[in-house]
Amino acid sequence: MTLSRRTHPRPLDIKNGRVDMTHGGGGRSMAQLVDELFVAAFDNEVLSQGNDQGAFTVPGGRMVMSTDGYVISPMFFPGGDIGSLAVHGTVNDVAMAGAVPIGLSAGFIIEEGFPLADLERVVKSMAAASKATGVPVMTGDTKVVEKGKGDGLFITTAGIGMVPPGIDISGDKARPGDVIMVSGTMGDHGVAVMSQRESLGFETEILSDSAALHTMVADMVTVAPGIRVLRDPTRGGLAATLNEIAVQSGVGMEIRERDIPIKPQVLGACELLGLDPLYVANEGKLICICGPDDAESVLAAMQAHPLGVDAKMIGVCDEDPHYFVRMKTAIGGTRVVDWLAGEQLPRIC
Amino acid sequence: MTLSRRTHPRPLDIKNGRVDMTHGGGGRSMAQLVDELFVAAFDNEVLSQGNDQGAFTVPGGRMVMSTDGYVISPMFFPGGDIGSLAVHGTVNDVAMAGAVPIGLSAGFIIEEGFPLADLERVVKSMAAASKATGVPVMTGDTKVVEKGKGDGLFITTAGIGMVPPGIDISGDKARPGDVIMVSGTMGDHGVAVMSQRESLGFETEILSDSAALHTMVADMVTVAPGIRVLRDPTRGGLAATLNEIAVQSGVGMEIRERDIPIKPQVLGACELLGLDPLYVANEGKLICICGPDDAESVLAAMQAHPLGVDAKMIGVCDEDPHYFVRMKTAIGGTRVVDWLAGEQLPRIC
Repeated sequence: MTLSRRTHPRPLDIKNGRVDMTHGGGGRSMAQLVDELFVAAFDNEVLSQGNDQGAFTVPGGRMVMSTDGYVISPMFFPGGDIGSLAVHGTVNDVAMAGAVPIGLSAGFIIEEGFPLADLERVVKSMAAASKATGVPVMTGDTKVVEKGKGDGLFITTAGIGMVPPGIDISGDKARPGDVIMVSGTMGDHGVAVMSQRESLGFETEILSDSAALHTMVADMVTVAPGIRVLRDPTRGGLAATLNEIAVQSGVGMEIRERDIPIKPQVLGACELLGLDPLYVANEGKLICICGPDDAESVLAAMQAHPLGVDAKMIGVCDEDPHYFVRMKTAIGGTRVVDWLAGEQLPRIC
Repeated sequence: MTLSRRTHPRPLDIKNGRVDMTHGGGGRSMAQLVDELFVAAFDNEVLSQGNDQGAFTVPGGRMVMSTDGYVISPMFFPGGDIGSLAVHGTVNDVAMAGAVPIGLSAGFIIEEGFPLADLERVVKSMAAASKATGVPVMTGDTKVVEKGKGDGLFITTAGIGMVPPGIDISGDKARPGDVIMVSGTMGDHGVAVMSQRESLGFETEILSDSAALHTMVADMVTVAPGIRVLRDPTRGGLAATLNEIAVQSGVGMEIRERDIPIKPQVLGACELLGLDPLYVANEGKLICICGPDDAESVLAAMQAHPLGVDAKMIGVCDEDPHYFVRMKTAIGGTRVVDWLAGEQLPRIC
């Protein structure tokens, strides 16, 4: 939940309105729901930081907490499943504060009639992801709802982590002149899920990039403790996430289309599916914004890590009173990369 | 999720079985699902503690984390709603380690078509509960699922807290001779929800006891840092929770029916609804087990707190190789208070 206050053309019609699929899509409607209903009601300092995790202080130092619900459909997809995703996604939200993850909680909402064999498959995958990342599932809960009142299985994980001294990463810290990087190719996860959902038989299977990024982040903050912003471009993809950060930091951005890494098969699938890869979800990639003096060393740290071999500098922050994200297109023009207006990909995570 | 290893007459049929409503009911079936599928897969030290919260150490001390999903139906009930419950329930799970709650995360899974006015009502109630308890909602997430794939609104909260030095409360610490207490009347929450669900028009409305117990717990551990066990008797009620603790600690228990506080109107409603109040959920009560030397001072601390005025000593722990919970009935006999076998009250929290 990114909770920066943004302006919206028309306020939500809370009296007569209903939740629709766009409210979960990672775009402008979701931002409006979060701002006008959730942030307005909770109105507290930690939540108002507007990051994907809340930061707070304990006697031993600074910590963060984050949560995400996983409602992905289909539950099993090339490169992962709802169980591994529920570990990776929340570990990543914790890591995006530069924090070292400590542990996770997991809440399961199961629909009556769900096969125990599928449940075991998910839980084993989750346990394997937890062991591989070294982040234990420390506590859990199971609820069962009647047949027809759920959709197989929903998982909500929360995660906590400890922020190393001297690290202060937040979505409001980007400054004009800062360099924008991505850790790898864009759109793999969303396209893997969509091609599964649409039963598209591509010649080369496209795998989700679902992965835990905390060890790469640890390498990055070691070489550059002054990194300003880290965020994983999940729902709404690179475009929505850059727009969130631009508004939160009060900067403009200019990115270069030719430098954004996208796999040819993902580009091809996007054309077939009518998707723009800049708006497609990622689950094992991050956006990093840092001062120009740190850029080379951060890029090198990413590229030296197995999950960052395709990392690239893709643009810079600049001054822009409208906080627009602009893109130099491959053919030399410039276009505004806007928020996602509607719901492009429902239940992608 | 209470995760002690227990023995079950027949192992789960994971290959061919399906999740049914008893797996969410707080009784023996749920314990078996948790043991044989979840604990077996995750197999880590923190989870295997078998408590409603996981404990771990950070540089500043000992902390706990807990999570619960809320799927209660109906969402609005006398004395509360899913929003206030999602705050109180998780604050209580943190407090049952003797911990001082720090903050909560909240994940919302919303069904398409859910009225924004209802969502706002829930979120405002949650925010009010959070402010009243002094435990902020620090981070959140919203997901939307298609109409017919959910049931209005599910909320999963996670909570973290810091355990004061010298406190070590856990479900495995009860010893023969220890005194068993409850902080107030049993069954109020479950009966309030059931009477709403069945549209029973009682002359006096029965209200849920939904409340946050952390300040009472703070008073209790101040007078008796050596308290052995605290647990809130939610799903499955007093009976299921005492059985969990008996198995976890390896003790028997003898409780006295005449000392268990139950409101006359709750008793009457239970008779009408065919429920046993010992198995009915509570959301603002706790069970405390402590050494006999601490019992009087702990009881006095509870009774001095507004949420513990009806606190009572209800029994003692003893040696029993079968870990049975036995009850001296009001008419002078003794009966075994067994686990709940099936699903008594679906979706009570």
